Amino acid sequence: MRAVVIHAAKDLRIEERDPEVAGPGEVEVAIEAGGVCGSDLHYFNHGGFGAIRLREPMILGHEVAGRIVALGDAVEGLAVGDRVAVSPSRPCGGCDYCLAGLPNQCLHMRFYGSAMPFPHVQGAFRQRLVASASQCHKVAADVSPGEAALSEPFAVTLHAVARAGSLLDRRVLVSGCGPIGALAIIAARAHGAREIVATDVADPALAVAARIGADRTINVAQAPEALAAYGAGKGSFDVQFEASGDERAVRAGLDVLRPRGILVQIGVGGDIAIPQSLVVAKEIEIRGSFRFHSEFALAVDTINRRRVDLTPLLTGTYPFEEAVAAFEAAGDRRRTMKVQLAF
Amino acid sequence: MRAVVIHAAKDLRIEERDPEVAGPGEVEVAIEAGGVCGSDLHYFNHGGFGAIRLREPMILGHEVAGRIVALGDAVEGLAVGDRVAVSPSRPCGGCDYCLAGLPNQCLHMRFYGSAMPFPHVQGAFRQRLVASASQCHKVAADVSPGEAALSEPFAVTLHAVARAGSLLDRRVLVSGCGPIGALAIIAARAHGAREIVATDVADPALAVAARIGADRTINVAQAPEALAAYGAGKGSFDVQFEASGDERAVRAGLDVLRPRGILVQIGVGGDIAIPQSLVVAKEIEIRGSFRFHSEFALAVDTINRRRVDLTPLLTGTYPFEEAVAAFEAAGDRRRTMKVQLAF
Amino acid sequence: MRAVVIHAAKDLRIEERDPEVAGPGEVEVAIEAGGVCGSDLHYFNHGGFGAIRLREPMILGHEVAGRIVALGDAVEGLAVGDRVAVSPSRPCGGCDYCLAGLPNQCLHMRFYGSAMPFPHVQGAFRQRLVASASQCHKVAADVSPGEAALSEPFAVTLHAVARAGSLLDRRVLVSGCGPIGALAIIAARAHGAREIVATDVADPALAVAARIGADRTINVAQAPEALAAYGAGKGSFDVQFEASGDERAVRAGLDVLRPRGILVQIGVGGDIAIPQSLVVAKEIEIRGSFRFHSEFALAVDTINRRRVDLTPLLTGTYPFEEAVAAFEAAGDRRRTMKVQLAF
Amino acid sequence: MRAVVIHAAKDLRIEERDPEVAGPGEVEVAIEAGGVCGSDLHYFNHGGFGAIRLREPMILGHEVAGRIVALGDAVEGLAVGDRVAVSPSRPCGGCDYCLAGLPNQCLHMRFYGSAMPFPHVQGAFRQRLVASASQCHKVAADVSPGEAALSEPFAVTLHAVARAGSLLDRRVLVSGCGPIGALAIIAARAHGAREIVATDVADPALAVAARIGADRTINVAQAPEALAAYGAGKGSFDVQFEASGDERAVRAGLDVLRPRGILVQIGVGGDIAIPQSLVVAKEIEIRGSFRFHSEFALAVDTINRRRVDLTPLLTGTYPFEEAVAAFEAAGDRRRTMKVQLAF
Repeated sequence: MRAVVIHAAKDLRIEERDPEVAGPGEVEVAIEAGGVCGSDLHYFNHGGFGAIRLREPMILGHEVAGRIVALGDAVEGLAVGDRVAVSPSRPCGGCDYCLAGLPNQCLHMRFYGSAMPFPHVQGAFRQRLVASASQCHKVAADVSPGEAALSEPFAVTLHAVARAGSLLDRRVLVSGCGPIGALAIIAARAHGAREIVATDVADPALAVAARIGADRTINVAQAPEALAAYGAGKGSFDVQFEASGDERAVRAGLDVLRPRGILVQIGVGGDIAIPQSLVVAKEIEIRGSFRFHSEFALAVDTINRRRVDLTPLLTGTYPFEEAVAAFEAAGDRRRTMKVQLAF
Repeated sequence: MRAVVIHAAKDLRIEERDPEVAGPGEVEVAIEAGGVCGSDLHYFNHGGFGAIRLREPMILGHEVAGRIVALGDAVEGLAVGDRVAVSPSRPCGGCDYCLAGLPNQCLHMRFYGSAMPFPHVQGAFRQRLVASASQCHKVAADVSPGEAALSEPFAVTLHAVARAGSLLDRRVLVSGCGPIGALAIIAARAHGAREIVATDVADPALAVAARIGADRTINVAQAPEALAAYGAGKGSFDVQFEASGDERAVRAGLDVLRPRGILVQIGVGGDIAIPQSLVVAKEIEIRGSFRFHSEFALAVDTINRRRVDLTPLLTGTYPFEEAVAAFEAAGDRRRTMKVQLAF
Repeated sequence: MRAVVIHAAKDLRIEERDPEVAGPGEVEVAIEAGGVCGSDLHYFNHGGFGAIRLREPMILGHEVAGRIVALGDAVEGLAVGDRVAVSPSRPCGGCDYCLAGLPNQCLHMRFYGSAMPFPHVQGAFRQRLVASASQCHKVAADVSPGEAALSEPFAVTLHAVARAGSLLDRRVLVSGCGPIGALAIIAARAHGAREIVATDVADPALAVAARIGADRTINVAQAPEALAAYGAGKGSFDVQFEASGDERAVRAGLDVLRPRGILVQIGVGGDIAIPQSLVVAKEIEIRGSFRFHSEFALAVDTINRRRVDLTPLLTGTYPFEEAVAAFEAAGDRRRTMKVQLAF
Repeated sequence: MRAVVIHAAKDLRIEERDPEVAGPGEVEVAIEAGGVCGSDLHYFNHGGFGAIRLREPMILGHEVAGRIVALGDAVEGLAVGDRVAVSPSRPCGGCDYCLAGLPNQCLHMRFYGSAMPFPHVQGAFRQRLVASASQCHKVAADVSPGEAALSEPFAVTLHAVARAGSLLDRRVLVSGCGPIGALAIIAARAHGAREIVATDVADPALAVAARIGADRTINVAQAPEALAAYGAGKGSFDVQFEASGDERAVRAGLDVLRPRGILVQIGVGGDIAIPQSLVVAKEIEIRGSFRFHSEFALAVDTINRRRVDLTPLLTGTYPFEEAVAAFEAAGDRRRTMKVQLAF
């Protein structure tokens, strides 16, 4: 079995790994598609991010879908041949946070392709993956592997929408139109946002944003005043989904959010300087949103029922053996939205 | 009638002003006590704060209580001789925010002693004040003028507690134990906080904090590790009331808040740098809290019923003619908590 | 100017009324379409409902749309010729509830065609209506008068959805598929409900429910066990929109709601007997939903943007002169969903 | 070891039972005090309630406190000699509700002295009880066994307060001043209720209510108009804690709750008829409250810190051998509030 293994920044290799055997409650999945995520890119470009650094070789990847090829004992509801999206999230089910309904905050989380714990949690960019049956969600026959593999980032944005509360009658700003921002637009639209304005500094990203449901797009590198105009009165937006991780996007958002507006932070950069007086005077709420829990099943269900169309995000698929080319393409926002590997 | 007028930084004068006459729905109040607030100190020390600068002489003051000496027409429920706490807040009652139940966000707010609009809104440090009857809340016979004048800052902290939601079973951190932090401790205790830890860099402030209800106090200048220990696991506090406006207090709080913890920002400084990744990973909520609305009446009622004891905050009263000495004392945290003027 | 006037049960007349003149801030609207609502039917069939009884002749109607034919002074944003949906709701803007952001609870509400106050508030089934400009919301050119007149009942259901909170990942039961239940299905679907099961005792209503977005329909007169099956475990639905006002629908809902499930009551009948022990043991929330406030503008906007298709509800239009026939048709659920009058 | 065993209505016996041995993670507790609850009385007087009927002999009791006399293996944080309040609640920790943070809704709950499952869950009115260490919460040295045994019903009311949300600035009605209503008064006061009005039909109960913190008490059998007066305008109370289970108390509450008011139902009777139109028109929320989860630990902590005084509820203690006399006394509201057994 071959896998995509990161050894250090810019050192990505295709390597042989011993296959695993599905134990009780587990299944073996032949991976078909795997999406390259921002965190994968951070490992590839920088060997990590923030305090999280590679300390041993690690299989990358956590946005995957495939086909079940073998069942362990005591698996119910799944069969060989089923096509599934695989959640990368394996909370322990026993810690205080799991028992409080917050498994995404699990103290013992095992999340594919993460160098946070040591030994690292090996990822899912591999030909065969043994996963818990509970991680595997069946996809409908007419859903492509690429769409199915978008379940994970779509779940991230559904969780962000859940963090915002009801979007009924809400005017929404989405800052940053990479894959997460784009999916946030789709998720917000599917949950009733009244109006969606999307911002980015790259026109190709904004073109996708417009295509998938933004009512208006603004290139804030070229026309920052178009966004600033929403700051009239005390602001115009009820909710901001901040998917850029960029300090300027946060600050611009605080200016155009209404009093009691909610900024849901999804994207992650480093430290950002925020104007405390504005947060106080407008009584703004900044809410972090981290991964997902029940939203993974919801993502698959929403895709299966064709309530959303995620295909405009699929801008390139590479054979997994060409992972280096794929990762280089994924880092170029002028060319790509979501890049995936085919296995 | 004499008033306490700020002309520029360090230029505070006692001046004659023409008395006003109570019109319909208004009352004339002989001010008895007025507390010096942090914003008053900013005008005194720096001529303003942030973008808000003095552009003309302005009577200072917005924490006042007194006795009604005359009634305008059509005033109900108040009588000459009534002792009242006077809310400095006069929302317009007609803008979108007033009609949304958010009068503290009123687009046309008139708040005593504020240089935000021009002409400035003249303040309440004066011998006679004409106010709307709706701003005046009767105080019980055994409540001193000084206690009554604490209604305003107490209302600020009750609003902050309201912003946090229910404190039932919540562990609370209060950072900054000046008057607002101290009142936040009292307000949180009165609303059921399970445990309150208070931090400051000044021992006298912490001594008051302990006296009024903090379960534990920590001098974070001397023993930062005592606070940091609460960061074990993913953190210990459900709610932080941040009353210092200091970046270090915010950052330390993010470290010791639990996932989904709420940081209510009351104190205001300038820009602060926050670790975005921590806000995201722990899904923390930062909520600004600005002034108050219905909480002013609640503050007076709570004081009247003797459900709280605010007297430990009263650390010095000066004749208003000695306002300069009072302001200088108010700026010295080693000596004072809340300084008030007597009229 | 002619109007549709109810004098007593079964005594509905077309009568001449003096035209009114648009004053400052008002407009004169030539009514084009008016929908017959359940409360109109109650006046027609029973002369009132509950404690609310006709005590003088009253023009009926509150679901109307038309075209502006004259402007009073000081009207901005509207012009002669504009086609508008007219909100029947005129809160006072000054009472405690209006200032708390709850204008639908206004203590001095003027709502078209209501016998609750005396003199009654005359309704909008008339050729010319003078309304406040703030009640008039422009409709897009391709929206028919009949669709525009659905703004009011659609607003009722949007308010009900708002009362339920976010529907993300929520399984929804709609009981009663008359016009309000049907619009609740549309509103819930547009705001992201994961799954919608609709129940009624009439197959034609269920056929419309299926067409407009219900995932499953159940005729509870014929197959109550199909609904009861959702009670397995402790229940299946997160939210119920109860639009029948029927005790059996409420009780059946309590059986199939999950613990902490929310029953939003929209439909109104008389007293209903509920099993207190079930409400307690499953910690169910029953929430009343009454009319709407900001949701009227949202309804018009949602229709204008073509985010919903309400036309399947339009099952019959009658000249207003044939109001009696229209009201008789409107009362026959086997034949009609929403009946409207053309003016 | 002897225990208090119910065989059928009015057939309560003191019987020998084989002692149990503490296994891993368990402790053996010598019970010191046990409070008689309404459900115990139902078994005693009627052999059950609603659909729950005795089908085999069952040890009664779930409000107990005692002293640890033996430890099983692998118990941490507890020692022989520790005095503890014992939570009767043993959720499974693995079902969907446990993992959603709702262990009180556990699908496999084991709750002491409950005839809901079969075989019944044996209760805690016994000389020796083997419990999980996690059920045992240490009580402070100066807390009496009787006070400690009030932890359970106090937890019930803390959960009810949690269900109501923040009580800041809230006016509260408590209907029914038996032990649960009385504890609800204490719990609401400790969490900041602005004003508490308590109603009952028995003056002795109201006398206790006044003593423990109600601002006003009303005997609604004698002066129903005193309560009805709160219905002026659209009502006066923000929250009602309904602890009587009586239909009249619910209906009277709906009349005097404000729009958007919350009725937390704790007490349980049979079916009750409610005026649907009032629930709708005032948009009232009825919320069931069932048992507790984290609130048990909170109850013990709040008692330990002496933040509440529950002793006014303790109106009689009987040797457990006189359980029949105790149960008869407990059923007489003219004489007793909370009756306890001593072991």
